[in-house]
Amino acid sequence: MEKLTRNNRVVAITKLLTENPNKIIGLNKFSGLLNAAKSTISEDIVIVREVFAKLNMGKIETIAGAAGGIKYIPSINKDEAREFAEGLCELLKDESRIIPGNFIYVTDLMYDPTIVSRAGLILSTIFSNKEIDSVVTVETKGIPLAYEVSKNLGIPLVIIRKEGKVTEGSTVSINYLSGTSGRIQQMSLSKKLMKPNSKCIFIDDFLRGGGTAKGIIDLLNEFDSKLVGIGVLIDNIGVKNKLISDYISLIDLNNLDKDKELEITPSKIFDGDNFNL
Amino acid sequence: MEKLTRNNRVVAITKLLTENPNKIIGLNKFSGLLNAAKSTISEDIVIVREVFAKLNMGKIETIAGAAGGIKYIPSINKDEAREFAEGLCELLKDESRIIPGNFIYVTDLMYDPTIVSRAGLILSTIFSNKEIDSVVTVETKGIPLAYEVSKNLGIPLVIIRKEGKVTEGSTVSINYLSGTSGRIQQMSLSKKLMKPNSKCIFIDDFLRGGGTAKGIIDLLNEFDSKLVGIGVLIDNIGVKNKLISDYISLIDLNNLDKDKELEITPSKIFDGDNFNL
Repeated sequence: MEKLTRNNRVVAITKLLTENPNKIIGLNKFSGLLNAAKSTISEDIVIVREVFAKLNMGKIETIAGAAGGIKYIPSINKDEAREFAEGLCELLKDESRIIPGNFIYVTDLMYDPTIVSRAGLILSTIFSNKEIDSVVTVETKGIPLAYEVSKNLGIPLVIIRKEGKVTEGSTVSINYLSGTSGRIQQMSLSKKLMKPNSKCIFIDDFLRGGGTAKGIIDLLNEFDSKLVGIGVLIDNIGVKNKLISDYISLIDLNNLDKDKELEITPSKIFDGDNFNL
Repeated sequence: MEKLTRNNRVVAITKLLTENPNKIIGLNKFSGLLNAAKSTISEDIVIVREVFAKLNMGKIETIAGAAGGIKYIPSINKDEAREFAEGLCELLKDESRIIPGNFIYVTDLMYDPTIVSRAGLILSTIFSNKEIDSVVTVETKGIPLAYEVSKNLGIPLVIIRKEGKVTEGSTVSINYLSGTSGRIQQMSLSKKLMKPNSKCIFIDDFLRGGGTAKGIIDLLNEFDSKLVGIGVLIDNIGVKNKLISDYISLIDLNNLDKDKELEITPSKIFDGDNFNL
């Protein structure tokens, strides 16, 4: 292959890093792909790293050693994140979203890649300093969001099913009280999917009473695994006496089930100095 | 902001394009972000476009007019795609994946972002020349894959539920015969999610008898919408008399339910000259 210029190489390096968040890529890989010496590639990476830092486009870390290389850690700064949350609040304020039974319709937003990828980036930034083995969610609406978070963190997604399926092999199931339906429901996890002693975070679209999150803690216990964080897009803060207290949300919603005016605001996560947990 | 060098600008342009597949980005946006004249940005884009073309990293198209700009169309070439499919076949050949009832366990692969993003890129490349409004899937295992395809194509994902949910608002439901369970099942789609006269593709993890795909065609008919393509990761070609014939798969599987040796190979999509449909 012909020699590439520096301009050309930094384009290729940026593309590969962006597409492979939290994956260590050895310098050899770039060296082979771009037909350039490792020392040249190292200089290229310095440029890419500086631009990412200057424009708040995430971090590039160097991992030393035989299995070393560089990895790209996606992140968003607090101002941009708050701006996104404010825009989402505007979308949610639309009165036609109120569904009989005091629910708010968010499905279209949870399936829109433009919104989900941004919300997932915010959540993965918040959890990026934690040591986590898997991102857990319960079917169905939160799956794209949980997937984005798992992709950014470079770890597998684990989807808990509402009932055991033949295609999942052996499963462990528990019963829990769902806040949405007010009914006893089942959740079920394939034994092949969860390694013992895993540290997990739970990502979902909506938090009401916390019954589902409580159920997941119990289910993970059955696998000798632990929930180390909970992140949701929207928290219905009007529901008091939640079953869990330690969680983060991007948007707080109030008065969904009263005759007062609906309140939808970015959550307090955007107030403090620290954005990462 | 200080002036950025060309090296710096091409890095930023590459990152923004890669993160926003199939979205038109106006030159003004780059111009503002990078503090450079539009003519300078145009020259930068020529460089980025050439590198993408040279290294088979997707296409950059120019859209003329007032709402114009450039957009990045992700794509993978056939050789790389076949190599990925061959690697996936090796993973699938593991005998511990055979589940009682003649099923093969693929859930872990369908939840692994490294695998899903690659498989999604292949499927979106194949469908990239079609005019499509939404990517449809049925909960649950195929959702991350369908989400990747929708993100690459820059269109919304639509998830069909197995039963109507209170949080979906009004829904339309149909009954269909599931090939996996051999039972009559229901599928249900929120009326808010599907616009009339939509052209959709159906993406799923596994094709057996085609009952689900047939059900989706019927359900979309209820919305005056049409299925214009079907793409699955794995096709069980051992199941004869499928209810559908016009679909593409990445991997073909045979003899899952016989006493013969399991056959798993990349599908014929990798054989011909044409990779795009």
